[in-house]
Amino acid sequence: MDGSHIPAYKKQTSSRGPVMIKVNENFKKLKASYLFSDIAKRVSDYTNNNPDKSIIKLGIGDVTRPLPGACIDAFHSAVDEMSSEDTFRGYGPEQGYSFLLETIAQADFQARNVNITPDEIFVSDGAKCDTGNFQELFSHDIKIAIPDPVYPVYVDTNVMAGRTGENNGGRYEGLIYLESTEQNGFVPAVPAEGVDLIYLCFPNNPTGAVATKQQLKSWVDYARDNNALILFDAAYECFIRDESLPHSIFEIEGADEVAVEFRS
Amino acid sequence: MDGSHIPAYKKQTSSRGPVMIKVNENFKKLKASYLFSDIAKRVSDYTNNNPDKSIIKLGIGDVTRPLPGACIDAFHSAVDEMSSEDTFRGYGPEQGYSFLLETIAQADFQARNVNITPDEIFVSDGAKCDTGNFQELFSHDIKIAIPDPVYPVYVDTNVMAGRTGENNGGRYEGLIYLESTEQNGFVPAVPAEGVDLIYLCFPNNPTGAVATKQQLKSWVDYARDNNALILFDAAYECFIRDESLPHSIFEIEGADEVAVEFRS
Repeated sequence: MDGSHIPAYKKQTSSRGPVMIKVNENFKKLKASYLFSDIAKRVSDYTNNNPDKSIIKLGIGDVTRPLPGACIDAFHSAVDEMSSEDTFRGYGPEQGYSFLLETIAQADFQARNVNITPDEIFVSDGAKCDTGNFQELFSHDIKIAIPDPVYPVYVDTNVMAGRTGENNGGRYEGLIYLESTEQNGFVPAVPAEGVDLIYLCFPNNPTGAVATKQQLKSWVDYARDNNALILFDAAYECFIRDESLPHSIFEIEGADEVAVEFRS
Repeated sequence: MDGSHIPAYKKQTSSRGPVMIKVNENFKKLKASYLFSDIAKRVSDYTNNNPDKSIIKLGIGDVTRPLPGACIDAFHSAVDEMSSEDTFRGYGPEQGYSFLLETIAQADFQARNVNITPDEIFVSDGAKCDTGNFQELFSHDIKIAIPDPVYPVYVDTNVMAGRTGENNGGRYEGLIYLESTEQNGFVPAVPAEGVDLIYLCFPNNPTGAVATKQQLKSWVDYARDNNALILFDAAYECFIRDESLPHSIFEIEGADEVAVEFRS
């Protein structure tokens, strides 16, 4: 295997010269970077002109407190498991350890009278990757409805995949934007036309609005009626305090036929 | 925000009835599942007919030993960091902590006389995701060369992205396969034609073959001559024992202009 039998590379007469690999042109449509650099510039200008003011940033957040004792203990004991021949674990099952799937099914769903079983749960590396990757399952010419405002990953991944036109005035051609305004309490109504794929996020990133059961039912009915699929991002469900509000779209009858839910 | 002001959804006269969301038809081309289910069936048949024989499986591997003491200690001390107000960390820097980038640059590259600086290193969730996602940066009509055999993720992600035709006899139309056989020591020669993107994996998964510096130089020269980009998967470099063999494609002069390297 020393490779001496392989002819050394010789410059080919057919060498392609200035031909270069072509980029995914859809990336050029992305405008998010302008938004965030614009925010950074305004923050910087303001703090320079007002060095004595403290600023609350509502952009990308970060944790502010250490992990609680229960997490620390669980982490230490899991690390100890990995140190011994008798207890270490290698690759876990592809969809998650069954003890975890069962705990999620019980604590997050069955405890709220939602009939979700462990085999319907898939443990992944998080809601960002999942909501970003999920669109790859579908054709390029589907009709997509996305709330505005909402977590930018839903829009950006569809832009990069080529499902939109250019960005005009902050919105991409080809997407159906669901207006979320003070007037509708930041919970959008179903569109007048039929669509294939709907992104919903409650509690909403960034507004914090949570859809009631009645509002979610309207979305589930719409999806069933239009053969649409709802991608429901419930990453922030643990912040819900009002007992009447749904934590899962599966609290709505019939949602199991038209929705996929993402959690964090 | 109780939503009572939102009109309840009423079935539309324009409801689309049997129209359904369309799947990404490229997924239907994937043949990998047949391969693995075929292997599983043959293994099962053999073990049923030969219950007294033990089998060495060379398919998907798994770790066989617990973590060494140094890793366990580092894990415990990092968990302790997360338990205290003074030492816990939130989101890390997007491209990785600078102490980690500096250690990688020094230990993996500069120690082998490779001039890689911390700002050229991006810490991610691993070589599988990275080699899988990287193709999204490019146009759909690029020409791709891939060794055979090799880690299936390179081929499958390009199939799913729609850069190939159907699978005929185990190979996808439109890809340029680089023959890796006993005759060439499982290190393929450069193709006769020009291509845009080349996947290389040394030490190779699954053959274990490692390209010499001379062989890699032939690939780097080819890439420079043809304006091609090499995606070099060095996930298994730490298993190299022969001091003369390169651990990184950046040990070859000029590779920094035509290659991206992935590690694990």
